[in-house]
Amino acid sequence: MHNKRLQYTVRVSEPNPRLATMMLEQFGGADGELAAAMRYFTQGLGEDDAGRKDLLLDIATEELSHLEVIGSIIAMLNKGVKAQLAEGAMEEAELYRSIGASGVSAKEALLFGGGPALIDSAGVPWTAAYVDSRSEPTADLRSNIAAESRAKIVYERLINVTDDPGIKEALGFLMTREIAHQKSFEKALYAIEDNFPSGKLPGISKFANIYVNTSQGEGDANGPWNVGEQWDRIDDLSLTMPIDGGDGTARVVLSLGDEAKLAKLAARTTSDPTCNPVTGVDLGAGPGAGRTTDEDMGGADDIHEAPAIAEANAPK
Amino acid sequence: MHNKRLQYTVRVSEPNPRLATMMLEQFGGADGELAAAMRYFTQGLGEDDAGRKDLLLDIATEELSHLEVIGSIIAMLNKGVKAQLAEGAMEEAELYRSIGASGVSAKEALLFGGGPALIDSAGVPWTAAYVDSRSEPTADLRSNIAAESRAKIVYERLINVTDDPGIKEALGFLMTREIAHQKSFEKALYAIEDNFPSGKLPGISKFANIYVNTSQGEGDANGPWNVGEQWDRIDDLSLTMPIDGGDGTARVVLSLGDEAKLAKLAARTTSDPTCNPVTGVDLGAGPGAGRTTDEDMGGADDIHEAPAIAEANAPK
Amino acid sequence: MHNKRLQYTVRVSEPNPRLATMMLEQFGGADGELAAAMRYFTQGLGEDDAGRKDLLLDIATEELSHLEVIGSIIAMLNKGVKAQLAEGAMEEAELYRSIGASGVSAKEALLFGGGPALIDSAGVPWTAAYVDSRSEPTADLRSNIAAESRAKIVYERLINVTDDPGIKEALGFLMTREIAHQKSFEKALYAIEDNFPSGKLPGISKFANIYVNTSQGEGDANGPWNVGEQWDRIDDLSLTMPIDGGDGTARVVLSLGDEAKLAKLAARTTSDPTCNPVTGVDLGAGPGAGRTTDEDMGGADDIHEAPAIAEANAPK
Amino acid sequence: MHNKRLQYTVRVSEPNPRLATMMLEQFGGADGELAAAMRYFTQGLGEDDAGRKDLLLDIATEELSHLEVIGSIIAMLNKGVKAQLAEGAMEEAELYRSIGASGVSAKEALLFGGGPALIDSAGVPWTAAYVDSRSEPTADLRSNIAAESRAKIVYERLINVTDDPGIKEALGFLMTREIAHQKSFEKALYAIEDNFPSGKLPGISKFANIYVNTSQGEGDANGPWNVGEQWDRIDDLSLTMPIDGGDGTARVVLSLGDEAKLAKLAARTTSDPTCNPVTGVDLGAGPGAGRTTDEDMGGADDIHEAPAIAEANAPK
Amino acid sequence: MHNKRLQYTVRVSEPNPRLATMMLEQFGGADGELAAAMRYFTQGLGEDDAGRKDLLLDIATEELSHLEVIGSIIAMLNKGVKAQLAEGAMEEAELYRSIGASGVSAKEALLFGGGPALIDSAGVPWTAAYVDSRSEPTADLRSNIAAESRAKIVYERLINVTDDPGIKEALGFLMTREIAHQKSFEKALYAIEDNFPSGKLPGISKFANIYVNTSQGEGDANGPWNVGEQWDRIDDLSLTMPIDGGDGTARVVLSLGDEAKLAKLAARTTSDPTCNPVTGVDLGAGPGAGRTTDEDMGGADDIHEAPAIAEANAPK
Amino acid sequence: MHNKRLQYTVRVSEPNPRLATMMLEQFGGADGELAAAMRYFTQGLGEDDAGRKDLLLDIATEELSHLEVIGSIIAMLNKGVKAQLAEGAMEEAELYRSIGASGVSAKEALLFGGGPALIDSAGVPWTAAYVDSRSEPTADLRSNIAAESRAKIVYERLINVTDDPGIKEALGFLMTREIAHQKSFEKALYAIEDNFPSGKLPGISKFANIYVNTSQGEGDANGPWNVGEQWDRIDDLSLTMPIDGGDGTARVVLSLGDEAKLAKLAARTTSDPTCNPVTGVDLGAGPGAGRTTDEDMGGADDIHEAPAIAEANAPK
Repeated sequence: MHNKRLQYTVRVSEPNPRLATMMLEQFGGADGELAAAMRYFTQGLGEDDAGRKDLLLDIATEELSHLEVIGSIIAMLNKGVKAQLAEGAMEEAELYRSIGASGVSAKEALLFGGGPALIDSAGVPWTAAYVDSRSEPTADLRSNIAAESRAKIVYERLINVTDDPGIKEALGFLMTREIAHQKSFEKALYAIEDNFPSGKLPGISKFANIYVNTSQGEGDANGPWNVGEQWDRIDDLSLTMPIDGGDGTARVVLSLGDEAKLAKLAARTTSDPTCNPVTGVDLGAGPGAGRTTDEDMGGADDIHEAPAIAEANAPK
Repeated sequence: MHNKRLQYTVRVSEPNPRLATMMLEQFGGADGELAAAMRYFTQGLGEDDAGRKDLLLDIATEELSHLEVIGSIIAMLNKGVKAQLAEGAMEEAELYRSIGASGVSAKEALLFGGGPALIDSAGVPWTAAYVDSRSEPTADLRSNIAAESRAKIVYERLINVTDDPGIKEALGFLMTREIAHQKSFEKALYAIEDNFPSGKLPGISKFANIYVNTSQGEGDANGPWNVGEQWDRIDDLSLTMPIDGGDGTARVVLSLGDEAKLAKLAARTTSDPTCNPVTGVDLGAGPGAGRTTDEDMGGADDIHEAPAIAEANAPK
Repeated sequence: MHNKRLQYTVRVSEPNPRLATMMLEQFGGADGELAAAMRYFTQGLGEDDAGRKDLLLDIATEELSHLEVIGSIIAMLNKGVKAQLAEGAMEEAELYRSIGASGVSAKEALLFGGGPALIDSAGVPWTAAYVDSRSEPTADLRSNIAAESRAKIVYERLINVTDDPGIKEALGFLMTREIAHQKSFEKALYAIEDNFPSGKLPGISKFANIYVNTSQGEGDANGPWNVGEQWDRIDDLSLTMPIDGGDGTARVVLSLGDEAKLAKLAARTTSDPTCNPVTGVDLGAGPGAGRTTDEDMGGADDIHEAPAIAEANAPK
Repeated sequence: MHNKRLQYTVRVSEPNPRLATMMLEQFGGADGELAAAMRYFTQGLGEDDAGRKDLLLDIATEELSHLEVIGSIIAMLNKGVKAQLAEGAMEEAELYRSIGASGVSAKEALLFGGGPALIDSAGVPWTAAYVDSRSEPTADLRSNIAAESRAKIVYERLINVTDDPGIKEALGFLMTREIAHQKSFEKALYAIEDNFPSGKLPGISKFANIYVNTSQGEGDANGPWNVGEQWDRIDDLSLTMPIDGGDGTARVVLSLGDEAKLAKLAARTTSDPTCNPVTGVDLGAGPGAGRTTDEDMGGADDIHEAPAIAEANAPK
Repeated sequence: MHNKRLQYTVRVSEPNPRLATMMLEQFGGADGELAAAMRYFTQGLGEDDAGRKDLLLDIATEELSHLEVIGSIIAMLNKGVKAQLAEGAMEEAELYRSIGASGVSAKEALLFGGGPALIDSAGVPWTAAYVDSRSEPTADLRSNIAAESRAKIVYERLINVTDDPGIKEALGFLMTREIAHQKSFEKALYAIEDNFPSGKLPGISKFANIYVNTSQGEGDANGPWNVGEQWDRIDDLSLTMPIDGGDGTARVVLSLGDEAKLAKLAARTTSDPTCNPVTGVDLGAGPGAGRTTDEDMGGADDIHEAPAIAEANAPK
Repeated sequence: MHNKRLQYTVRVSEPNPRLATMMLEQFGGADGELAAAMRYFTQGLGEDDAGRKDLLLDIATEELSHLEVIGSIIAMLNKGVKAQLAEGAMEEAELYRSIGASGVSAKEALLFGGGPALIDSAGVPWTAAYVDSRSEPTADLRSNIAAESRAKIVYERLINVTDDPGIKEALGFLMTREIAHQKSFEKALYAIEDNFPSGKLPGISKFANIYVNTSQGEGDANGPWNVGEQWDRIDDLSLTMPIDGGDGTARVVLSLGDEAKLAKLAARTTSDPTCNPVTGVDLGAGPGAGRTTDEDMGGADDIHEAPAIAEANAPK
């Protein structure tokens, strides 16, 4: 059932199609209200635990009402351009200016006529690829917590670029609700006693506490995430190539027929490492080995000196 | 720098293109290793905190090496079909059978020739829409925690459908590393003292502790997520329509010109509620108001009785 | 066969990359000429009725020639930026200004070099998801009618933002052809005697004339679409929850083995409704329950008063 | 507000993950219930006419309840695979068989764990590219009519492949509702008095009644869509190349600077029509002009004779 | 293994979010560094030839380091907007101006917080649809050559719009490396002796040297690609409709049951070519056959004269 | 203009919906005929060189006629399922079996009704992301050469899985035409005298001949692509980190205001490297640090021994 009153009253000072395209981020964007509603709705449909099912459907329904609030803001902000486009008279140049600054407001105006569309602030259509429900509550609840945290931030950024007080106030409401939802999902996660690691299969002990310091050089840093008694830290990467004590290759047992076919394929496409073939580049490079310049692109105020690589190579 | 040995030795018992398509889920899928690597890599590039930057680049690099492990498994599983397709002789029917059962293995074979492709187990190309980095560490770390938890589950499911011991063992290693990564990201999140709510703007007090029971009826349930002293629970939804005490409408202040244009637009497209127009359906429905049947589609063993809606409506 | 002359002569007053990006909407956009051509072409290939097949191929071919007209307009509008980018000298700042205002004209210039690309006015690549052919003529012809109606509107909007007379004239031609095509498709739809409902299966009588008034509250309205003797209108939604007289639940008969597994799964992931667990939020919220403020985001000129929800809840 | 009872009771005979993937077509597919709900919801938010706004929100809300029905069917059909994957023990081969036949059921199982996901029957995520709302009621209502007609057909096809009576019955209900919705939208379209052509701009008289017979040859056919007094039919295509009486070229007026740059670009990339360059193909074709065969691929039972093209060309 | 120093030192003069969005083209765009790295990496994993495998992994690894260079440029260019958004105070209007000009920089700022995101310069997420590896080295190496050539051009265009010397210099380095990579791939292609045509199956002789002049009219041109002794050129298209000497139709042998069903389907959806049905357009066109005008859209300065089509048709 | 006869006569032995889905790869797939036609068509529209423009439009037009051939094959292969679905009677189980094996044939049947749809063999809609035209002829012609080479291979693979002689023959024709087109594009590329490197800007000499051996270890190989007098080979990667002689960092000059904001942001989100915080994982891991096992997933027949990492770390 739907009630025609919005969950939050919307008062917009004046039309502004560019601000409307920014608001699209929370209508048809990756962390927008449709993504939120569909995330919880699909989880709710598949959930067998009564408590979590209820929670998911409660919040899914509220997110749909938020979708309506943000969509109404967009509709208000676009009301001028909608009228101008539909009844367009002699003011082409003005219309062009008002929607032409951004490809997104152009698309919003030309294709969608100013109606709220399920695209993000860059005009990309909403995709269910944003929804990361996995039918495992300890993973899904963590995804929900993260999603609420992200949505909170996007609302905060929208508040920071908006100076229309009515919109700012509605955004503040919507932002705060994400905080409340995060709290609910946290409670639901930790109400599952044994929630880590997710799923049923345990990790393999000998790999579960290793930290591999794969990125090295100036900037290496320590913290509780890689130092302390719970970690077996590997700095010498030769120990992990491979980590299993094998030879680090990939092999498969093939049938004789497949072996024979692979051998024929290899022979047919073998590359001769000793040849130095004429290539298409040689044909097309004109007189010389292709155009080059000794100048950097940055102009005269070169800040770097190229290394003497040839020399460096010499002694090798 | 790249080392040609894998992080984990791969031993595959025999080629199996259908199993290969399942493994694609962790190669080019939503929670696969490319998604993981790119998630941490892009966060690392934008991060200014030395500790987190190091952590993100460490794990990003390790995920790239996992991408290589899972890709090598796929290459091994597809080695037979690759050979057969490339050197195909008179066995069309057999090849057709081996790859034809699933559209994905068909695409893997026909388009990608058995090479590991950045598609998921349904053949959908990897998209950066899977990457939810937001440049706010308290949100990003939560997203990373959730992503590791999801990846763990997908590996668990792959282990549950695989009976090749060499693959199973490698998957067990990869699954366990996700557990270790989750632990690191948790440490990094809570090493930020004030990590909730994300960002700088506080929530609005009066909306931060409300729980709205929007989904009602049999199945309503309580839990720590909606009951307890921290919650102001709303069961009477009329209190939230709207929650701000306004009238729940959306309005914008328009210029006189826009108002006039909107009025013309409304006049031009007004719908007459009193007419009962002949419609395209009437033209096309043949003799009568369109074909209908009194039978349910389910056949004779009808399990439901339709309600007597006409009667129910009658007294109203 | 292709004839090099365009169906309509194109005269463009001066290059304008921003206007070019707007024109992309009808080149690589959702209602653009490629979408139209492919819609009718794929229908035509699958159609067995000689008359409709001819009609579909006639119009598909004409739409391809329109694709050429609109693409030529785009190529003309981009000719300046193409030359400047290819022969770019010392005017970086100027080039930056001319293409930098919009991400789309940046992409058009940087990636496509000013050539007409199959993207829409927001830079989103054309996708066959726009083509809604279903191999059922009574549905496809309705889709075609709708598509022509939409394309007409987008051309109208483009005309309204263009003040180049040569482009405006060509757009007027293209817009008018969509009107003519709509007329043809309407004739073809109604030349099928029994075209409603689509397909072969009749509707179930008891559900075919019901109108469910699911959205209620101020704003409820009547019209020929929900009032009149052909409608059984349901205002009391409890009659439709569920409409079949059953209990409105979803059930499946499971094997004993699956039942046992589900029970184990439920036990493993059960949520304890009576606990009040410490959560990640509690760990991260610093001293207190997370930052909140008593101020609305809208500033001092608050227009709404928050309801006294706590009080409202009290008597319940 | 959400009521936990479904609009239609769902009774499923037994789990069947392959049938579940087919049902996904109406959950996350192009003509599925999410597409329907979002189509009407976004139109409703932007609509200013009270009657149509109410209609759109009524039907949007009902489509959301249908999304819940079809999602519940999918959840029931996948309940076995969900349990088996989550609690997977020693039956890898069996699980592999049950989900491995199709890439989609593999993705549904491995990634989504059997939960209803917003993908179609081929595993492609739902995209808002399916939603064709344009903020012009005479176009949008035609799109809605077409969409209902398409959804009706997809339900009919699902009914034709299902032999589970409970599912069949629920699908029959959902199919019938699409018929009822189409009737409502037809009424709303024709309640707008002057609904053709869509929008405000009239067509250009001289182009509005032309039918261009672009596809010629055996199979040319007549019908009310191209013959009759309302049509000016063009069979001689030389009349339309171009139709405007111009020269059928595309031109733009360039600045002198751009002209000069274009000339330099042309000189730099000019192709010499008189040369016969050695090419990469020549380098790579081995001894001779590349491998060819005189046999058709079809084998000995050739059904066609290649034309004597060389001879045919000779007299020219 | 990852080294924290970049392959090329990055010095950026000042933040510039619009320039950052342009640079995104080579970060998350179609010819950007991720596309390059993934192209070579996936080929390398599937390659069995030792030399090519080494080459592909060498260059894949270098492209990843380039991804880091271009990503670091973007992070530097966005550092101002990142700070302003995160700590946003009272300057909403200024922030709005700085990011609002383009939908892409809005998305970059609002959704991604200024962090480098895997989107292109129009905000479209990177997709593996850009990667065209096919597991056939003679095709893949040609694709790699083409990809390097494209990437070179996009870098050239970026250099042409940038006046920051540090960025320009880094771009010059990256551009030059694409040239070097192209040379390596050319060598690898021609080190395969018999590399044309790709694959094993030879072409059919009688079709391998035909050039079909399908596009005719003013503008027809000759060159070594369609004239010369290696070509059998067809100008008379009636020779190719069809080229095989058959009747140019498509047929399939159906079972009797399918034939019967098709006949019923044809009968049910037959179109009556002799009727002239009243259509939805007739219902909606108001008094007359739909609005038309005798004026072109271009205004009074009409440059074209419509042809006298009616007259032209008359004598026919 | 369109001629109703196909370019190649199509004779199909019997309907086969699974084979039809494979053929989709060349209809709506990445290297299919629509991709080819659109690639050349868009290049042709933007091309100013008369010879190349003619060539591109000739081949674009021929590819459209090939799209018609392959689409007709698909329509024939699906004719049975189309009839059965449309007139479906009592054979649900049979229909389910015939289309249910693959998600793609399910989508082809249920959504598209057996009509040829612009999707690939995995059901993914065609996207213009496949079209890599860049408005630079020396790059575009290389892309075209590569595309023809890829399309040739996909046709070869389709021939290898088909045993219907009529289809095989038509595919042989189509495959051969790709060979001929490649030859034409090669001629056109080398008819541009100075075609390498693409574009106008020369490479920077000192970086143009360097080969960086980034992937090292067993498997390192030499060939003409990295050895020989034209190459400056770098094996000691410390020389390239960075290659420019700088410090390998990324820096930007910020305003004082931005510096201050960044400092505040850093302070707010600083991570304390010395703490060891309790985390969500600790809360959820139950008694102990999370479940682990000492067994590998591969079972008893363990083929690898885990390294003694703890010991290895000990001496460090």
